[in-house]
Amino acid sequence: MDSKQKILIKFGERVREIRKEKGLSQEELAHIADLHRTYIGMIERAEKNITLINIEKIANALEVKINNLIN
Amino acid sequence: MDSKQKILIKFGERVREIRKEKGLSQEELAHIADLHRTYIGMIERAEKNITLINIEKIANALEVKINNLIN
Repeated sequence: MDSKQKILIKFGERVREIRKEKGLSQEELAHIADLHRTYIGMIERAEKNITLINIEKIANALEVKINNLIN
Repeated sequence: MDSKQKILIKFGERVREIRKEKGLSQEELAHIADLHRTYIGMIERAEKNITLINIEKIANALEVKINNLIN
């Protein structure tokens, strides 16, 4: 990603916010979501354009609806 | 995509539904969203794992909120 897109920034911030509310580390969230820890870090920093399937994995791991992650 | 994931099927069906409600062809939607017509077809048939940036492009082109495309 050359430039950080607003929607990715908002998504990443929301993931980080809810992850911390749940008291999870990036590593723990990655484990629950079956993703890599570095990938979670990249998503939170808006460095990757996440796919719908991985959005669903993260929402499930955080026990929230996808709508809760994207406003 | 080897197997069609449920969330992609639901997303694609919703895009097709709203596109038809708006009276748009795949080609017209593609043009408004600045995507390829074949790509819109693949999304509607759940053959591609769409990214968040393209989800936003399609939502904007259909003049709906992203939450309206993902339940």
